[in-house]
Amino acid sequence: MRQRGRFITLEGGEGVGKSTNLEWVAQWLVARGVEVVRTREPGGTPRAEAMRELLLSPQADEPLDADAELLLVFAARAQHLAQRIRPALERGAWVLCDRFTDATFAYQGGGRGIEPDRIAELERFVQRGLEPDLTLLLDMPVAAAQRRLQGRLTASGDSRDRFEQEQASFFEAVRQAYLARAAAAPQRMAVIDADAPLGTVQARLSACLEARVSAWL
Amino acid sequence: MRQRGRFITLEGGEGVGKSTNLEWVAQWLVARGVEVVRTREPGGTPRAEAMRELLLSPQADEPLDADAELLLVFAARAQHLAQRIRPALERGAWVLCDRFTDATFAYQGGGRGIEPDRIAELERFVQRGLEPDLTLLLDMPVAAAQRRLQGRLTASGDSRDRFEQEQASFFEAVRQAYLARAAAAPQRMAVIDADAPLGTVQARLSACLEARVSAWL
Repeated sequence: MRQRGRFITLEGGEGVGKSTNLEWVAQWLVARGVEVVRTREPGGTPRAEAMRELLLSPQADEPLDADAELLLVFAARAQHLAQRIRPALERGAWVLCDRFTDATFAYQGGGRGIEPDRIAELERFVQRGLEPDLTLLLDMPVAAAQRRLQGRLTASGDSRDRFEQEQASFFEAVRQAYLARAAAAPQRMAVIDADAPLGTVQARLSACLEARVSAWL
Repeated sequence: MRQRGRFITLEGGEGVGKSTNLEWVAQWLVARGVEVVRTREPGGTPRAEAMRELLLSPQADEPLDADAELLLVFAARAQHLAQRIRPALERGAWVLCDRFTDATFAYQGGGRGIEPDRIAELERFVQRGLEPDLTLLLDMPVAAAQRRLQGRLTASGDSRDRFEQEQASFFEAVRQAYLARAAAAPQRMAVIDADAPLGTVQARLSACLEARVSAWL
Protein backbone atom coordinates (compact mmCIF):
# COMPACT_ATOMS: atom_id res chain seq x y z
CA MET A 1 0.00 0.00 0.00
CA ARG A 2 1.31 3.46 -0.92
CA GLN A 3 2.07 5.94 1.77
CA ARG A 4 -0.27 8.89 2.20
CA GLY A 5 0.98 11.95 0.32
CA ARG A 6 2.12 15.19 1.92
CA PHE A 7 0.06 18.36 2.09
CA ILE A 8 2.01 21.59 1.50
CA THR A 9 0.44 25.04 1.44
CA LEU A 10 1.76 28.38 0.21
CA GLU A 11 0.54 31.47 2.01
CA GLY A 12 0.95 35.22 1.84
CA GLY A 13 -0.84 38.46 0.98
CA GLU A 14 -1.54 39.91 -2.45
CA GLY A 15 1.56 40.59 -4.55
CA VAL A 16 4.11 38.48 -2.62
CA GLY A 17 4.72 36.12 -5.58
CA LYS A 18 2.73 33.02 -4.62
CA SER A 19 1.87 31.86 -8.13
CA THR A 20 5.41 32.01 -9.49
CA ASN A 21 6.89 30.38 -6.43
CA LEU A 22 4.18 27.70 -6.22
CA GLU A 23 5.16 26.56 -9.69
CA TRP A 24 8.80 26.59 -8.68
CA VAL A 25 8.11 24.44 -5.59
CA ALA A 26 6.04 22.06 -7.75
CA GLN A 27 8.97 21.63 -10.15
CA TRP A 28 11.34 21.05 -7.22
CA LEU A 29 9.11 18.18 -6.09
CA VAL A 30 8.49 16.76 -9.57
CA ALA A 31 12.25 16.68 -10.15
CA ARG A 32 12.45 14.41 -7.08
CA GLY A 33 9.88 11.96 -8.44
CA VAL A 34 6.82 13.21 -6.54
CA GLU A 35 3.36 13.25 -8.12
CA VAL A 36 2.16 16.80 -7.38
CA VAL A 37 -1.44 18.02 -7.45
CA ARG A 38 -1.40 21.84 -7.75
CA THR A 39 -4.53 23.53 -6.48
CA ARG A 40 -5.77 26.68 -4.81
CA GLU A 41 -8.24 28.08 -2.30
CA PRO A 42 -10.89 29.22 -2.27
CA GLY A 43 -11.69 26.87 -5.14
CA GLY A 44 -9.95 23.78 -6.49
CA THR A 45 -13.07 22.03 -7.88
CA PRO A 46 -15.79 23.39 -10.20
CA ARG A 47 -18.32 23.71 -7.37
CA ALA A 48 -15.75 25.27 -5.02
CA GLU A 49 -14.63 27.67 -7.77
CA ALA A 50 -18.27 28.79 -8.10
CA MET A 51 -18.21 29.59 -4.36
CA ARG A 52 -14.92 31.48 -4.93
CA GLU A 53 -16.70 33.66 -7.47
CA LEU A 54 -19.27 34.62 -4.84
CA LEU A 55 -16.46 35.51 -2.43
CA LEU A 56 -14.40 37.61 -4.83
CA SER A 57 -16.99 39.44 -6.92
CA PRO A 58 -17.36 43.07 -5.88
CA GLN A 59 -21.06 43.85 -5.34
CA ALA A 60 -21.33 47.32 -3.98
CA ASP A 61 -25.11 47.23 -3.47
CA GLU A 62 -25.02 44.36 -0.97
CA PRO A 63 -22.07 43.97 1.39
CA LEU A 64 -21.17 40.36 2.15
CA ASP A 65 -21.71 39.72 5.87
CA ALA A 66 -18.50 38.68 7.69
CA ASP A 67 -20.04 35.44 9.03
CA ALA A 68 -21.45 34.61 5.59
CA GLU A 69 -18.02 35.18 4.06
CA LEU A 70 -16.40 32.91 6.65
CA LEU A 71 -18.97 30.12 6.17
CA LEU A 72 -18.65 30.37 2.40
CA VAL A 73 -14.87 30.01 2.68
CA PHE A 74 -15.33 26.85 4.75
CA ALA A 75 -18.07 25.49 2.45
CA ALA A 76 -15.63 25.76 -0.47
CA ARG A 77 -12.94 24.15 1.72
CA ALA A 78 -15.19 21.20 2.66
CA GLN A 79 -15.91 20.60 -1.02
CA HIS A 80 -12.23 20.89 -1.96
CA LEU A 81 -11.16 18.51 0.82
CA ALA A 82 -13.81 15.91 -0.03
CA GLN A 83 -13.49 16.00 -3.80
CA ARG A 84 -9.83 16.73 -4.38
CA ILE A 85 -7.39 17.05 -1.47
CA ARG A 86 -8.23 13.94 0.58
CA PRO A 87 -8.52 11.61 -2.46
CA ALA A 88 -5.16 12.84 -3.79
CA LEU A 89 -3.37 12.39 -0.44
CA GLU A 90 -4.91 8.95 -0.02
CA ARG A 91 -3.59 7.71 -3.33
CA GLY A 92 -0.10 8.96 -2.39
CA ALA A 93 0.05 12.20 -4.39
CA TRP A 94 1.36 15.35 -2.75
CA VAL A 95 -0.98 18.33 -2.70
CA LEU A 96 0.48 21.79 -3.20
CA CYS A 97 -2.18 24.37 -2.41
CA ASP A 98 -2.18 28.14 -2.98
CA ARG A 99 -3.69 29.28 0.35
CA PHE A 100 -5.58 27.26 2.98
CA THR A 101 -6.87 27.85 6.52
CA ASP A 102 -4.00 30.12 7.58
CA ALA A 103 -5.39 32.54 4.98
CA THR A 104 -8.76 32.40 6.74
CA PHE A 105 -7.14 33.37 10.04
CA ALA A 106 -5.25 36.13 8.23
CA TYR A 107 -8.03 37.58 6.03
CA GLN A 108 -11.26 36.86 7.91
CA GLY A 109 -9.55 36.94 11.34
CA GLY A 110 -6.86 39.64 11.06
CA GLY A 111 -8.46 41.53 8.16
CA ARG A 112 -12.17 41.35 9.05
CA GLY A 113 -11.78 41.08 12.82
CA ILE A 114 -13.59 37.76 13.29
CA GLU A 115 -12.57 36.13 16.58
CA PRO A 116 -9.91 33.44 16.01
CA ASP A 117 -11.95 31.09 18.23
CA ARG A 118 -14.86 31.26 15.80
CA ILE A 119 -12.56 30.41 12.90
CA ALA A 120 -10.98 27.56 14.88
CA GLU A 121 -14.47 26.15 15.54
CA LEU A 122 -15.16 25.88 11.81
CA GLU A 123 -11.63 24.59 11.18
CA ARG A 124 -12.32 21.65 13.52
CA PHE A 125 -15.78 21.18 12.02
CA VAL A 126 -14.51 20.90 8.44
CA GLN A 127 -10.99 19.52 8.67
CA ARG A 128 -11.52 16.90 11.40
CA GLY A 129 -7.86 17.03 12.34
CA LEU A 130 -6.32 17.33 8.87
CA GLU A 131 -3.79 20.14 8.55
CA PRO A 132 -0.88 20.91 6.22
CA ASP A 133 2.40 19.05 6.80
CA LEU A 134 4.27 22.20 5.79
CA THR A 135 3.21 25.80 5.15
CA LEU A 136 5.50 28.22 3.32
CA LEU A 137 4.63 31.81 4.23
CA LEU A 138 5.95 34.32 1.68
CA ASP A 139 6.36 37.56 3.57
CA MET A 140 7.21 41.12 2.60
CA PRO A 141 6.25 44.63 3.74
CA VAL A 142 2.76 45.66 2.59
CA ALA A 143 3.96 48.68 0.59
CA ALA A 144 6.33 46.53 -1.48
CA ALA A 145 3.64 43.89 -2.11
CA GLN A 146 1.14 46.56 -3.14
CA ARG A 147 3.61 47.98 -5.68
CA ARG A 148 4.06 44.49 -7.17
CA LEU A 149 0.29 43.87 -7.23
CA GLN A 150 -0.32 47.20 -8.97
CA GLY A 151 2.36 46.43 -11.54
CA ARG A 152 0.75 43.09 -12.31
CA LEU A 153 -2.74 44.59 -12.62
CA THR A 154 -1.49 47.39 -14.86
CA ALA A 155 0.30 44.91 -17.11
CA SER A 156 -2.66 42.52 -17.34
CA GLY A 157 -5.48 45.07 -17.40
CA ASP A 158 -7.31 43.07 -14.68
CA SER A 159 -9.36 44.96 -12.13
CA ARG A 160 -9.08 44.43 -8.38
CA ASP A 161 -11.29 41.78 -6.78
CA ARG A 162 -13.24 42.34 -3.55
CA PHE A 163 -10.17 41.63 -1.39
CA GLU A 164 -7.64 43.45 -3.56
CA GLN A 165 -9.79 46.59 -3.17
CA GLU A 166 -9.16 46.71 0.59
CA GLN A 167 -7.04 49.42 2.25
CA ALA A 168 -3.44 49.26 3.41
CA SER A 169 -4.57 48.85 7.05
CA PHE A 170 -6.44 45.67 6.04
CA PHE A 171 -3.33 44.21 4.37
CA GLU A 172 -1.18 45.19 7.34
CA ALA A 173 -3.59 43.32 9.64
CA VAL A 174 -3.49 40.32 7.27
CA ARG A 175 0.32 40.32 7.33
CA GLN A 176 0.53 40.56 11.11
CA ALA A 177 -2.00 37.73 11.54
CA TYR A 178 0.04 35.54 9.19
CA LEU A 179 3.25 36.28 11.10
CA ALA A 180 1.55 35.54 14.43
CA ARG A 181 0.32 32.18 13.07
CA ALA A 182 3.85 31.33 11.93
CA ALA A 183 5.35 32.30 15.28
CA ALA A 184 2.83 30.06 17.06
CA ALA A 185 3.45 27.02 14.84
CA PRO A 186 7.15 27.04 13.87
CA GLN A 187 7.20 23.26 13.32
CA ARG A 188 4.65 23.53 10.54
CA MET A 189 5.17 27.04 9.15
CA ALA A 190 8.29 28.49 7.55
CA VAL A 191 8.52 32.22 6.90
CA ILE A 192 10.29 33.02 3.62
CA ASP A 193 11.46 36.62 3.20
CA ALA A 194 10.07 37.38 -0.28
CA ASP A 195 11.22 41.00 -0.53
CA ALA A 196 14.17 40.12 -2.76
CA PRO A 197 14.93 39.25 -6.41
CA LEU A 198 13.26 36.03 -7.54
CA GLY A 199 16.53 34.06 -7.60
CA THR A 200 17.20 34.98 -3.99
CA VAL A 201 13.68 34.00 -2.90
CA GLN A 202 14.04 30.67 -4.67
CA ALA A 203 17.40 30.01 -3.04
CA ARG A 204 15.66 30.58 0.29
CA LEU A 205 12.83 28.24 -0.71
CA SER A 206 15.35 25.64 -1.82
CA ALA A 207 17.17 25.75 1.51
CA CYS A 208 13.88 25.44 3.34
CA LEU A 209 12.71 22.47 1.26
CA GLU A 210 16.09 20.72 1.67
CA ALA A 211 15.86 21.13 5.41
CA ARG A 212 12.20 20.23 5.88
CA VAL A 213 11.06 18.10 2.95
CA SER A 214 14.03 15.97 1.90
CA ALA A 215 13.47 13.56 4.77
CA TRP A 216 9.94 12.80 3.48
CA LEU A 217 11.14 11.74 0.02
CA MET B 1 -39.64 53.14 20.02
CA ARG B 2 -41.42 50.47 18.02
CA GLN B 3 -41.59 46.94 19.29
CA ARG B 4 -39.45 44.31 17.55
CA GLY B 5 -41.43 42.44 14.88
CA ARG B 6 -42.31 38.76 14.99
CA PHE B 7 -40.51 36.06 13.02
CA ILE B 8 -42.78 33.38 11.55
CA THR B 9 -41.55 30.50 9.40
CA LEU B 10 -43.41 28.06 7.18
CA GLU B 11 -41.96 24.59 6.84
CA GLY B 12 -42.69 21.34 5.03
CA GLY B 13 -41.44 19.05 2.26
CA GLU B 14 -41.86 19.46 -1.50
CA GLY B 15 -45.47 19.65 -2.68
CA VAL B 16 -47.20 20.39 0.64
CA GLY B 17 -48.43 23.81 -0.51
CA LYS B 18 -46.04 26.21 1.19
CA SER B 19 -46.10 28.97 -1.42
CA THR B 20 -49.91 29.23 -1.59
CA ASN B 21 -50.33 29.09 2.15
CA LEU B 22 -47.50 31.52 2.84
CA GLU B 23 -49.31 34.13 0.77
CA TRP B 24 -52.54 33.35 2.65
CA VAL B 25 -50.83 33.81 6.03
CA ALA B 26 -49.30 37.07 4.78
CA GLN B 27 -52.76 38.36 3.83
CA TRP B 28 -54.15 37.28 7.22
CA LEU B 29 -51.47 39.43 8.89
CA VAL B 30 -51.77 42.39 6.49
CA ALA B 31 -55.53 42.45 7.14
CA ARG B 32 -54.68 42.94 10.84
CA GLY B 33 -52.42 45.92 10.13
CA VAL B 34 -49.07 44.19 10.24
CA GLU B 35 -46.20 45.17 7.92
CA VAL B 36 -45.11 41.81 6.50
CA VAL B 37 -41.78 41.01 4.82
CA ARG B 38 -42.18 37.82 2.76
CA THR B 39 -38.94 35.99 2.12
CA ARG B 40 -37.51 32.52 1.66
CA GLU B 41 -34.54 30.28 2.36
CA PRO B 42 -32.11 29.46 1.09
CA GLY B 43 -31.98 32.93 -0.40
CA GLY B 44 -33.77 36.14 0.46
CA THR B 45 -31.08 38.59 -0.74
CA PRO B 46 -29.23 38.73 -4.09
CA ARG B 47 -26.04 37.28 -2.63
CA ALA B 48 -27.93 34.59 -0.69
CA GLU B 49 -29.96 33.71 -3.79
CA ALA B 50 -26.68 33.18 -5.65
CA MET B 51 -25.73 30.69 -2.92
CA ARG B 52 -29.16 29.05 -3.34
CA GLU B 53 -28.35 28.48 -7.02
CA LEU B 54 -25.21 26.58 -6.02
CA LEU B 55 -27.28 24.45 -3.63
CA LEU B 56 -30.09 23.60 -6.04
CA SER B 57 -28.34 23.19 -9.38
CA PRO B 58 -27.99 19.55 -10.36
CA GLN B 59 -24.35 18.87 -11.36
CA ALA B 60 -23.94 15.19 -12.00
CA ASP B 61 -20.19 15.33 -12.58
CA GLU B 62 -19.36 16.65 -9.10
CA PRO B 63 -21.46 15.64 -6.10
CA LEU B 64 -21.83 18.37 -3.48
CA ASP B 65 -20.22 17.18 -0.23
CA ALA B 66 -22.68 17.00 2.68
CA ASP B 67 -20.59 19.30 4.91
CA ALA B 68 -20.17 21.77 2.04
CA GLU B 69 -23.93 21.77 1.49
CA LEU B 70 -24.55 22.40 5.19
CA LEU B 71 -22.03 25.25 5.38
CA LEU B 72 -23.44 26.81 2.23
CA VAL B 73 -26.94 26.70 3.73
CA PHE B 74 -25.67 28.53 6.81
CA ALA B 75 -23.61 31.01 4.75
CA ALA B 76 -26.79 31.99 2.91
CA ARG B 77 -28.62 32.17 6.26
CA ALA B 78 -25.99 34.45 7.81
CA GLN B 79 -26.30 36.80 4.84
CA HIS B 80 -30.11 36.71 4.96
CA LEU B 81 -30.17 37.39 8.71
CA ALA B 82 -27.68 40.27 8.48
CA GLN B 83 -29.07 41.97 5.40
CA ARG B 84 -32.80 41.33 5.61
CA ILE B 85 -34.32 39.47 8.58
CA ARG B 86 -32.70 41.28 11.52
CA PRO B 87 -33.11 44.78 10.04
CA ALA B 88 -36.81 44.09 9.31
CA LEU B 89 -37.52 42.75 12.81
CA GLU B 90 -35.67 45.67 14.36
CA ARG B 91 -37.78 48.26 12.58
CA GLY B 92 -40.95 46.46 13.75
CA ALA B 93 -41.91 44.55 10.60
CA TRP B 94 -42.93 40.91 10.81
CA VAL B 95 -40.89 38.46 8.76
CA LEU B 96 -42.67 35.55 7.11
CA CYS B 97 -40.09 33.12 5.78
CA ASP B 98 -40.54 30.09 3.51
CA ARG B 99 -38.22 27.62 5.31
CA PHE B 100 -35.53 28.27 7.91
CA THR B 101 -33.33 26.18 10.20
CA ASP B 102 -35.94 23.46 10.82
CA ALA B 103 -35.52 22.67 7.10
CA THR B 104 -31.80 22.22 7.67
CA PHE B 105 -32.46 19.68 10.43
CA ALA B 106 -35.01 17.96 8.14
CA TYR B 107 -33.08 17.95 4.84
CA GLN B 108 -29.41 17.94 5.80
CA GLY B 109 -30.06 16.09 9.09
CA GLY B 110 -32.89 13.67 8.34
CA GLY B 111 -32.34 13.50 4.59
CA ARG B 112 -28.53 13.52 4.34
CA GLY B 113 -27.82 11.93 7.72
CA ILE B 114 -25.71 14.74 9.18
CA GLU B 115 -25.61 14.53 13.00
CA PRO B 116 -28.12 16.98 14.56
CA ASP B 117 -25.37 18.13 16.96
CA ARG B 118 -23.29 19.34 14.01
CA ILE B 119 -26.26 21.31 12.67
CA ALA B 120 -26.99 22.74 16.12
CA GLU B 121 -23.38 23.91 16.35
CA LEU B 122 -23.75 26.00 13.18
CA GLU B 123 -27.20 27.16 14.28
CA ARG B 124 -25.66 28.66 17.45
CA PHE B 125 -22.76 30.05 15.43
CA VAL B 126 -24.97 31.92 12.95
CA GLN B 127 -28.17 32.74 14.81
CA ARG B 128 -26.67 33.76 18.17
CA GLY B 129 -29.94 32.92 19.92
CA LEU B 130 -32.42 34.21 17.33
CA GLU B 131 -35.12 31.71 16.46
CA PRO B 132 -38.64 31.93 14.98
CA ASP B 133 -41.46 33.04 17.28
CA LEU B 134 -43.77 30.62 15.47
CA THR B 135 -43.22 27.86 12.92
CA LEU B 136 -46.10 26.44 10.89
CA LEU B 137 -45.27 22.92 9.69
CA LEU B 138 -47.42 21.85 6.74
CA ASP B 139 -47.53 18.07 6.89
CA MET B 140 -48.87 15.35 4.62
CA PRO B 141 -47.87 11.82 3.62
CA VAL B 142 -44.95 11.73 1.18
CA ALA B 143 -46.89 9.93 -1.57
CA ALA B 144 -49.59 12.61 -1.60
CA ALA B 145 -47.01 15.44 -1.63
CA GLN B 146 -45.11 13.79 -4.48
CA ARG B 147 -48.30 13.56 -6.56
CA ARG B 148 -48.88 17.28 -6.02
CA LEU B 149 -45.26 18.17 -6.85
CA GLN B 150 -45.40 16.10 -10.05
CA GLY B 151 -48.65 17.76 -11.09
CA ARG B 152 -47.09 21.21 -10.58
CA LEU B 153 -43.94 20.31 -12.54
CA THR B 154 -45.97 18.81 -15.39
CA ALA B 155 -48.15 21.91 -15.58
CA SER B 156 -45.21 24.35 -15.47
CA GLY B 157 -42.73 22.37 -17.55
CA ASP B 158 -40.05 22.94 -14.85
CA SER B 159 -37.51 20.23 -14.19
CA ARG B 160 -36.68 18.91 -10.72
CA ASP B 161 -33.91 20.62 -8.79
CA ARG B 162 -31.19 18.71 -6.92
CA PHE B 163 -33.45 18.11 -3.90
CA GLU B 164 -36.61 17.36 -5.85
CA GLN B 165 -34.66 14.60 -7.64
CA GLU B 166 -34.22 12.64 -4.38
CA GLN B 167 -35.95 9.32 -3.70
CA ALA B 168 -39.07 8.61 -1.61
CA SER B 169 -36.91 7.33 1.29
CA PHE B 170 -35.18 10.75 1.42
CA PHE B 171 -38.52 12.58 1.63
CA GLU B 172 -39.81 10.15 4.24
CA ALA B 173 -36.71 10.87 6.36
CA VAL B 174 -37.25 14.61 5.85
CA ARG B 175 -40.88 14.31 6.98
CA GLN B 176 -40.02 12.29 10.07
CA ALA B 177 -37.26 14.74 11.05
CA TYR B 178 -39.73 17.63 10.72
CA LEU B 179 -42.32 15.84 12.89
CA ALA B 180 -39.70 15.01 15.51
CA ARG B 181 -38.64 18.70 15.62
CA ALA B 182 -42.29 19.73 16.10
CA ALA B 183 -42.84 17.17 18.86
CA ALA B 184 -39.76 18.46 20.69
CA ALA B 185 -40.76 22.15 20.45
CA PRO B 186 -44.58 22.32 20.70
CA GLN B 187 -44.50 25.88 22.06
CA ARG B 188 -42.87 27.16 18.88
CA MET B 189 -44.02 24.72 16.22
CA ALA B 190 -47.57 23.97 15.08
CA VAL B 191 -48.25 20.99 12.82
CA ILE B 192 -50.93 21.73 10.20
CA ASP B 193 -52.42 18.68 8.47
CA ALA B 194 -52.15 19.79 4.82
CA ASP B 195 -53.56 16.64 3.21
CA ALA B 196 -56.97 18.23 2.62
CA PRO B 197 -58.63 20.69 0.21
CA LEU B 198 -57.15 24.19 0.34
CA GLY B 199 -60.17 25.65 2.15
CA THR B 200 -59.84 23.08 4.92
CA VAL B 201 -56.09 23.71 5.28
CA GLN B 202 -56.70 27.45 5.49
CA ALA B 203 -59.40 26.97 8.13
CA ARG B 204 -56.81 25.02 10.14
CA LEU B 205 -54.23 27.78 9.61
CA SER B 206 -56.77 30.39 10.65
CA ALA B 207 -57.57 28.54 13.89
CA CYS B 208 -53.86 28.21 14.62
CA LEU B 209 -53.16 31.90 13.98
CA GLU B 210 -56.13 32.98 16.12
CA ALA B 211 -54.86 30.82 18.96
CA ARG B 212 -51.18 31.67 18.75
CA VAL B 213 -50.76 35.03 17.00
CA SER B 214 -53.76 37.17 17.99
CA ALA B 215 -52.22 37.94 21.37
CA TRP B 216 -49.18 39.50 19.65
CA LEU B 217 -51.24 41.98 17.63
